[in-house]
Amino acid sequence: MSSEIKRLQTGEPENLTERFASRAAHMKASEIRSLFAVASRPDIVSLAGGMPNLSALPMEMMASVVQKLILENGQEALQYGSGQGHPKLREQICDVMALEGIRAHPDDVIVTTGSQQALDLISRIFIDPGDVVLVEAPSYVGALGTFSQYEAQVVHVAMDQDGLIPDALRQAITSTRAAGRHIKFLYLIPNYQNPAGVLLPADRRTEILEICRSAEIFVIEDNPYGLLGFDRPAPNAMRAEDSENVIYLGSFSKTIAPGFRVGWALVPPALKEKLVIASESSILCPSNFSQLSISSYLSDQPWRDQIASFCELYRTRRDAMLEAMEQHFPKEASWTNPEGGFYVWVTLPPEIDTKAMVPAAIVAKVAYVPGTAFYADGFGSWSMRLSYCYPSPERIRDGIKSLGGVIKKEMERRSIG
Amino acid sequence: MSSEIKRLQTGEPENLTERFASRAAHMKASEIRSLFAVASRPDIVSLAGGMPNLSALPMEMMASVVQKLILENGQEALQYGSGQGHPKLREQICDVMALEGIRAHPDDVIVTTGSQQALDLISRIFIDPGDVVLVEAPSYVGALGTFSQYEAQVVHVAMDQDGLIPDALRQAITSTRAAGRHIKFLYLIPNYQNPAGVLLPADRRTEILEICRSAEIFVIEDNPYGLLGFDRPAPNAMRAEDSENVIYLGSFSKTIAPGFRVGWALVPPALKEKLVIASESSILCPSNFSQLSISSYLSDQPWRDQIASFCELYRTRRDAMLEAMEQHFPKEASWTNPEGGFYVWVTLPPEIDTKAMVPAAIVAKVAYVPGTAFYADGFGSWSMRLSYCYPSPERIRDGIKSLGGVIKKEMERRSIG
Repeated sequence: MSSEIKRLQTGEPENLTERFASRAAHMKASEIRSLFAVASRPDIVSLAGGMPNLSALPMEMMASVVQKLILENGQEALQYGSGQGHPKLREQICDVMALEGIRAHPDDVIVTTGSQQALDLISRIFIDPGDVVLVEAPSYVGALGTFSQYEAQVVHVAMDQDGLIPDALRQAITSTRAAGRHIKFLYLIPNYQNPAGVLLPADRRTEILEICRSAEIFVIEDNPYGLLGFDRPAPNAMRAEDSENVIYLGSFSKTIAPGFRVGWALVPPALKEKLVIASESSILCPSNFSQLSISSYLSDQPWRDQIASFCELYRTRRDAMLEAMEQHFPKEASWTNPEGGFYVWVTLPPEIDTKAMVPAAIVAKVAYVPGTAFYADGFGSWSMRLSYCYPSPERIRDGIKSLGGVIKKEMERRSIG
Repeated sequence: MSSEIKRLQTGEPENLTERFASRAAHMKASEIRSLFAVASRPDIVSLAGGMPNLSALPMEMMASVVQKLILENGQEALQYGSGQGHPKLREQICDVMALEGIRAHPDDVIVTTGSQQALDLISRIFIDPGDVVLVEAPSYVGALGTFSQYEAQVVHVAMDQDGLIPDALRQAITSTRAAGRHIKFLYLIPNYQNPAGVLLPADRRTEILEICRSAEIFVIEDNPYGLLGFDRPAPNAMRAEDSENVIYLGSFSKTIAPGFRVGWALVPPALKEKLVIASESSILCPSNFSQLSISSYLSDQPWRDQIASFCELYRTRRDAMLEAMEQHFPKEASWTNPEGGFYVWVTLPPEIDTKAMVPAAIVAKVAYVPGTAFYADGFGSWSMRLSYCYPSPERIRDGIKSLGGVIKKEMERRSIG
């Protein structure tokens, strides 16, 4: 019997599951995976994905950067590199972080295959099954997936329009510890949060740092969008204020391009060796080809101007989305007002089930991510994430108009409003 | 106090270890890491590393391949991609594997950040703490490190000049199971093994496959060197004979260049989804930039001829090393006779401690890897791995001459021979 036929007949062999590690039970396809397959159809306006818009990136310039790199330094660029990452790029990463007030030493930077790998390595170092990880409510779906694979118990901490609420954090720490659970770290995205689109103000940053320091809880500051503020810069990074209790994650995916898969972690010195060893075990070393392409770009090109172009591109799209929402969404809906980044978080009347509403949206040629994807605990059923990063302003207006219609119809059907 | 000063004073904070996951205790620097730092000094002939020799790779051609890719397909090459890997590259990978007799479907291929990541993901799916992994004696140091981080118990199975010994495998399975331990898989490198340099003959492949199939033990066939046979092609891959019980790992690191970090796993269909989900949690997606660079190269360039150039380059170096060993090594030493790949495995009289002998070798301006690095159980103290892949034939001859002198001196000191 050919394996092709057998595959159709059997699916997963019956005895296979018992041959897996126990953590494999947590390796389940995210509920938004099938959604993305549909949302990528060209006739659908996708407000679902988080792909950066590369139309502002001059491809002739990028082509010449990589060509020159291989011609001048191909023997190094195509060879194995250091497990920690290339020394020159680690220096340049410190320059990038200086824009957000961080003073760091290249020795404490570990280059990773996107910041997702940093999340994975940190989970590997800290999480025993049953340990608690504190996260914002809602939080980044990719982080929730990783924490779940390491069999962490995720405890969500409430946010408002200004991000994580310090008092809610205090209460979460107290009640979790009262239940005898070990808290390993707080994971948060202070700038233009994914999915909520909110910004944590400077005073809350200080307060949260104090809470975590005195509770001996590491802070994982995930900051892919920090340089994408539209009207004014974001406050200094939390790491700028605390170099000993903050693990900072950065990425070039949104400020240059995600196809290189270059991110990094800046860690307290005591954590560095473990992180490098974990990374070597995971991928041996990050790609010199990608790292040195980024490094050449940072050396030779006006990268700050390029980030400004990205900001302008995203600001225009945010404006288009918010204006269209004002016009087409029902008065019972509320949403966040992002000052940067990619996302708007929409809250509908609690009777609406945004996951159940997806098929109607697809029929109306628009896609979004239902709110439950961003919670580990099933919450979020009457909210949704909308991304304005990728489509054109015109497509965004069309998509929001269609979505407004779908929401209103659903409210009528449920006799709301 | 600045963190710089504090670092010098405290090293690892006392209470930090108890905040780690239990697996972090297994994250220790490999004993060969510090050796590599010394071995990379230009005055040392390094027979220690496993870096492929890229002098045969035409850099102008590579530069034009990546330039053209960005110019013609930059929007895709620099964007996020699929978690499983790019569909076109997965098709081309099937063409590459066909050279070793494998008939595979691109749906069953998962592209990874080097085959090290595939090892990590497979370990993640299968290994609970205390599970047994069977490996050759000796085996690849990077695999041993990963198995250890997943808290596997590694059981070595004896090899001879023809690779893994089937009867030793039978005995290992019987005795491990008699002790009540769970065996999760057999990991082996059938072609030009790292570190032993030996080739597993076709009849042993068949016998080992039968043993593992009937014992319900997956076979992890790691094959980075398979196309690097010097005098004749290697036998068909084990996966060619068994598509349901073999997980095959491939890599472009030795046939094109390691700086791209592109490897792959070909897995039985029932394992695919778990592997993709584990990879998404680990790195989100492999680099489109790297994958499409490899894909363009495979489409447009004479890659089979390039592999033939690599084979010629390595054959010349192997010949230089073996000739010099005949001339300069003591008669009490024995070594393997590699028909391909990068490595020779040397066995000295058991009184010699190759790890203790490293400083003397460094003084004599030559470096090697002591045998114990390739065992999880402390064995191998009178053996060493020599790599002929990277230095020039002249440097190899010089290095072997020096090393022969060091060995003879050490034998004299211990009154051997």
